[in-house]
Amino acid sequence: MKTLIKNIHLITMDAQFTQFEDAFLTIAGTQIVGFGDTSQAPSEADFDTVIDGNGAIAMPGMVNTHTHVGMIPFRSLGDDTPDRLTRFLFPLEHECMTKELAYHSAKYAIAEMQLAGVTTFFDMYYFEEKIAVATDEMHARAILGESIIDKSPDSEVEFGGLEYSEAFIPRWLNHDRITPAVAPHAPYTNTDESLLAASELARKYNIPFSIHLSEMTFEMDKYYEEYGQTPVEYLSQLGVLDEKTLAAHCIFVTDSDIALMKEKQVSVAHCIGANTKSAKGVAPLSSMLEAGLAVGLGTDGPSSGNTLDLFTQMRMVANFHKTHTGNRAAFPAREIVRLATLGGAEAIGMSDSIGSIEVGKKADIVLVETDSVNMFPIFDVYSALVYSANASNVSHVFVDGKLVVEDKKLLLASVSDLRGNLAKEMTYFTEKALEFSEDL
Amino acid sequence: MKTLIKNIHLITMDAQFTQFEDAFLTIAGTQIVGFGDTSQAPSEADFDTVIDGNGAIAMPGMVNTHTHVGMIPFRSLGDDTPDRLTRFLFPLEHECMTKELAYHSAKYAIAEMQLAGVTTFFDMYYFEEKIAVATDEMHARAILGESIIDKSPDSEVEFGGLEYSEAFIPRWLNHDRITPAVAPHAPYTNTDESLLAASELARKYNIPFSIHLSEMTFEMDKYYEEYGQTPVEYLSQLGVLDEKTLAAHCIFVTDSDIALMKEKQVSVAHCIGANTKSAKGVAPLSSMLEAGLAVGLGTDGPSSGNTLDLFTQMRMVANFHKTHTGNRAAFPAREIVRLATLGGAEAIGMSDSIGSIEVGKKADIVLVETDSVNMFPIFDVYSALVYSANASNVSHVFVDGKLVVEDKKLLLASVSDLRGNLAKEMTYFTEKALEFSEDL
Ligand SMILES: [Zn+2]
Ligand SMILES: [Zn+2]
Repeated sequence: MKTLIKNIHLITMDAQFTQFEDAFLTIAGTQIVGFGDTSQAPSEADFDTVIDGNGAIAMPGMVNTHTHVGMIPFRSLGDDTPDRLTRFLFPLEHECMTKELAYHSAKYAIAEMQLAGVTTFFDMYYFEEKIAVATDEMHARAILGESIIDKSPDSEVEFGGLEYSEAFIPRWLNHDRITPAVAPHAPYTNTDESLLAASELARKYNIPFSIHLSEMTFEMDKYYEEYGQTPVEYLSQLGVLDEKTLAAHCIFVTDSDIALMKEKQVSVAHCIGANTKSAKGVAPLSSMLEAGLAVGLGTDGPSSGNTLDLFTQMRMVANFHKTHTGNRAAFPAREIVRLATLGGAEAIGMSDSIGSIEVGKKADIVLVETDSVNMFPIFDVYSALVYSANASNVSHVFVDGKLVVEDKKLLLASVSDLRGNLAKEMTYFTEKALEFSEDL
Repeated sequence: MKTLIKNIHLITMDAQFTQFEDAFLTIAGTQIVGFGDTSQAPSEADFDTVIDGNGAIAMPGMVNTHTHVGMIPFRSLGDDTPDRLTRFLFPLEHECMTKELAYHSAKYAIAEMQLAGVTTFFDMYYFEEKIAVATDEMHARAILGESIIDKSPDSEVEFGGLEYSEAFIPRWLNHDRITPAVAPHAPYTNTDESLLAASELARKYNIPFSIHLSEMTFEMDKYYEEYGQTPVEYLSQLGVLDEKTLAAHCIFVTDSDIALMKEKQVSVAHCIGANTKSAKGVAPLSSMLEAGLAVGLGTDGPSSGNTLDLFTQMRMVANFHKTHTGNRAAFPAREIVRLATLGGAEAIGMSDSIGSIEVGKKADIVLVETDSVNMFPIFDVYSALVYSANASNVSHVFVDGKLVVEDKKLLLASVSDLRGNLAKEMTYFTEKALEFSEDL
């Protein structure tokens, strides 16, 4: 299968930010095999499929480095409630989350991400086996880890995620687009033993390890009071931080935490939207980048971040970090687009195969149309992506060489079918959610 | 002309936040004449037009309290440049801005706002006569003020905006949808004499008076160094602040400034997106609201804010002010929707006729569809509007009883025609803009 995409403004997001204003790109099988100025384009006759970009911006598929695709049912529930986690999220998860609900939620969430140009995501949730099946069916690329936590809705035993992971990991180890991972929920919801066992599992299979870290003020207080350490110091001393670790949030990391993370080669999923919506704070992104950490963007789950697209996150990164550093020239648009693409690929350890448009890399490609009213004029294509575009501007999406979104329509499923299935599966959840909301 | 809108989730944004989950709304001529539960709906046979909302959220048209619709040509130009105002904006305005360019830019900007559910805007720019013509042709509602500033592209004399305004104001004084205003650019670009003359003009015609205020650090420094005062104190003592005053930005207002503004009944256009993108800072919104100031949201011009929709602003208000106050329960979603609707109407002095859905008010109505992937589930309709929706979810827009957007399509013009006209008019501007960008 050979595809030619013509009539595009191509941004490669390679190390030199190479771009071609009037360009073509060619795909063979799952790989990018060529691109360049239109004047150098091959003959259309040599291709099975020719897509006319109509002047769209072509960019690498975006990488959502932290989400929980099973949590679509929670969206817009108790958003501005102070005790939301303990009032809604934990009890509803334990009472109502089933493998069918996680599966239908995952399919819906993946549809939402593909329509928004996210081609790869890193998920941690429950019933991860069903989430892997959903990912496979939707032809998405993902790293998937079963949450390891004291109590979970898919196990009778404490830290049942460990046992779950032991079965889950080998089943998905050799999949083309799916990489299993080990995902302890957070330091404070785990024991030393469960963290060490999780780390051992990741090392045994040489797979990613991800954890929520330095996200909560009570977490910071707990480690300071009990050990006189930061959570980063604690985990480092425990011996679980290494180059396979992706730490989500890192809002409260100190300069010495950052130095320690650099030493251990820990990377970061920066979730500015979720962190600031919950009033937790603004992670020290400029210090993390200056120290040379690999950083990508994450939406967090649809309960915390509400939308799963990275356009919203890019805009938030610009506004929050320019203001936070007091420098309007800081975080120029192209650096922010880099965080959403190659930065994310680096953070999840996949920059050899995705994150930029280079010959031999996987054909995860997104077209962002420029016909809509918000996309004119374009003096700077990165500015247009960060400050003007939204998820609805994404017109075409390729994952692993396969077209999954065409003319803003999902090809492998219909949104209304996915919604119908999810809504049906949500009946008991919704009943309970409304009950829990009653005395608000 | 009588219109029935059926099958909607209606949020009235009245003082009690009255809403109807399964509702109808009726329009006769330019006014809202009825609404309520579907069970009470009148017969469809009595209406000229029946619109099926298909479960859309129906809300009052949004009010953009501060923008510069003539500035579409500047969008995405030098966004992350530190000296942008003096390097790009002022010189390009003086060299390239013409009445034709302002006119075509205004039509394009109004199209963008209507497609995003903004039915009323407050503009200050140059060639405001042409902007009024554009507003009239697009059937928008607006308050329009010619900028009064030392040097302007549409006058040979200093503070030529005063003379311009004297001719402009009477011409538009009795228009149904257009209200002329007086708009000195800022304290620091005016003299006492020009400010007093502007204020006198606003009082003579009893029309709005708007000014950029407490926006710049150099502005704060200048008034402190020269007068030992804040700009608010200076203008108050000069005698130009009153209930007709809409102050844009107010980033650096102190608690005593806020008290003074309350005493003088000054209202505020809060432009969180533009203020934080330029790293200026976060205005003390919670203090302004606690003091009882009327506050609306503004995008600022497309050069500063990039998009002219209020969805982006609502999301920014939530995230910035929750984080700024350290309280995730602060600024609940419905209060933010209020800022974008009734709050804006109050800030521009039009809450008697617009800003909420009440019988007898003007029929400025927006439908936000809930079929798109980002709009499910909806446990809280305000949360869905603030945290999930974007401009592309707006499906229908009525201004003054007239349908101007239907099924996401503009009815009074086509976006591609408006863009074509604007692009043609931008030839010289674009040439100069690229020249100015060269040594970046
Ligand atoms: Zn998370
Ligand atoms: Zn302005």
